[in-house]
Amino acid sequence: MSQSFCLNNLPRTLSLERLADEAVLSFVDQRALPQKLIVKQARTSEQVIDAIKTLAVRGAPALGVAGAAGLALWVQTCASAGFDARACSEQLDSAAAALACARPTAVNLSWGVNRSLQLAKSLLSTGCSLDEVAQRLFGLVAQMEAEDEQCNRAIGQHGAALLKDNTRVLTHCNAGSLATVFYGTALGVVYAAAQEGKIAHVYADETRPVGQGARLTVWELSQVGIPATLICDNMAASLMASGAVDAVIVGADRIAANGDVANKIGTYGVAILAHEHGIPFYVAAPLSTIDASIPDGAAIPIEQRDASEVASFVPAGVKVWNPAFDVTPWRYVTGIITERGVFDPQNLIDELKG
Amino acid sequence: MSQSFCLNNLPRTLSLERLADEAVLSFVDQRALPQKLIVKQARTSEQVIDAIKTLAVRGAPALGVAGAAGLALWVQTCASAGFDARACSEQLDSAAAALACARPTAVNLSWGVNRSLQLAKSLLSTGCSLDEVAQRLFGLVAQMEAEDEQCNRAIGQHGAALLKDNTRVLTHCNAGSLATVFYGTALGVVYAAAQEGKIAHVYADETRPVGQGARLTVWELSQVGIPATLICDNMAASLMASGAVDAVIVGADRIAANGDVANKIGTYGVAILAHEHGIPFYVAAPLSTIDASIPDGAAIPIEQRDASEVASFVPAGVKVWNPAFDVTPWRYVTGIITERGVFDPQNLIDELKG
Repeated sequence: MSQSFCLNNLPRTLSLERLADEAVLSFVDQRALPQKLIVKQARTSEQVIDAIKTLAVRGAPALGVAGAAGLALWVQTCASAGFDARACSEQLDSAAAALACARPTAVNLSWGVNRSLQLAKSLLSTGCSLDEVAQRLFGLVAQMEAEDEQCNRAIGQHGAALLKDNTRVLTHCNAGSLATVFYGTALGVVYAAAQEGKIAHVYADETRPVGQGARLTVWELSQVGIPATLICDNMAASLMASGAVDAVIVGADRIAANGDVANKIGTYGVAILAHEHGIPFYVAAPLSTIDASIPDGAAIPIEQRDASEVASFVPAGVKVWNPAFDVTPWRYVTGIITERGVFDPQNLIDELKG
Repeated sequence: MSQSFCLNNLPRTLSLERLADEAVLSFVDQRALPQKLIVKQARTSEQVIDAIKTLAVRGAPALGVAGAAGLALWVQTCASAGFDARACSEQLDSAAAALACARPTAVNLSWGVNRSLQLAKSLLSTGCSLDEVAQRLFGLVAQMEAEDEQCNRAIGQHGAALLKDNTRVLTHCNAGSLATVFYGTALGVVYAAAQEGKIAHVYADETRPVGQGARLTVWELSQVGIPATLICDNMAASLMASGAVDAVIVGADRIAANGDVANKIGTYGVAILAHEHGIPFYVAAPLSTIDASIPDGAAIPIEQRDASEVASFVPAGVKVWNPAFDVTPWRYVTGIITERGVFDPQNLIDELKG
């Protein structure tokens, strides 16, 4: 298998491009995959917010970089419009809040926005021009893009060390290269393990209602040459019972201080099924996903999305429940794979301090 | 709630109609729901087989009656074509086998075909004409239709007695009136309990890939006036964790002698989740669903269906796994609700004998 494994066919998901007269955020429009690989550009903060809300850009680590880029583009817009630095300063917090609130669950988004915000505030307080601030923020975004890939490759190395030869992995949603700038978190572990010849097969839950598994994960795996099988979410239990799964690896949108993990809806069920079948259940995520300010999963805001994602037609009197995420209690998580190593969820904060 | 509950808006799912010159099997085409209620007619065994294979007719109890009707229509066709009784006798077994094999998992199908087959053989052996045999088989089908409804109403009564006031039920797939001639098994329990004012709400798993929950169950519940919410299959764990589910009730396609239950794909996962959350998990099915010849679930044939049901587009090199059923081990089943009462799955055969 490993002979045919190759990352060259994977696009970079996000990239801030500094053109002659302006910077733009290029992004793979994830709504068009797997049929078409379309790259779009956002020139304003509003366009970034729209891309986030409509899931053209998604995935917790990618949202962090998109958020930082969004605020940088907002400053660029202010500079182009001839605003003075004071007017811009006064509106900076609300511009940042609009970006950070575009989706509520993934903490990486507000983390990324905040990195831009803090740098912008510090520069403005020292009398930098808006043009200078924008350029420095573009530099920060470029740095965050590079950090994201390094981070994912480190996650991959730490995770790959946990896997045996001929491992068959089940994953849920897409925590792949498409959910990051490049390389991926859960799939980053798969890619690092594939590089070592350890991956026999990857099963992808389709991940209703938006289909990130069916549309994105199997496309990514096909691009890099890893044998993959698509299943419906409700087939995971049978698949595990058949003995076909050696490890479950998923991403995360927010990890509370006690190790509870918010991730794409359905993750919690998969974690219980893995537990019941004696299969290790790993969460792969950068440290920016850990929200130490939140004591446990009950305090993580869960985004509720529109009924139309679930069904185009619903009979009169029938409601639809469409939470985009769920919370997996720490006790179902075998290990949290980060760029700094693998942590026991129960002792996450203590181990991070140590 | 119970004030608005009314079964009058539910159609009969199957009905053998004896017209002036021929009998036809009328059936609700379940592929058109929930947008349209279309009733179709089958005049031949081949048309019945096609309706079964394409899921126009589905649901274990309904398949039993459809199978019996299919063989009756085959004898009618032989009679109309002027075949003699001996020629018909010689082909009877293969005609029955073609019907019984239309789908492999639900034992009710072969059970129903066999009831027609045994009566036909017995009548042919005593010298009845093909016309007489056909008429007697039509009578048997009419009797089976009546038995099915009686049976479901008895299942409903036994099941309702298990539920407390204000029960919130989660169900998977459609084991409703549409899966039977009338009234339903799992939803029969809901209907009997609703009659007693005990049902607060029903949650329906959409049941990928065919969507029996999204298309059929919520339509049925809407027709009878029971408040319902549609969820994606992967939301069941979160829903249970939120405390919104008091009982899970599902149907069955085949129950092995040890109490293992084959049912729509995803049932096994729901059973594990219910177990983990301390929620009772009931299986509602007529005794015709019990296959005492099969020691345990491992011996139940699981139908594999086409990849196109799961995804219309799959990237190169990606496979799709699409089993239509799974097996829930007896230990996850709180009780099997039949027309003769509620049985402990572990002692199913002993209790049935007793």
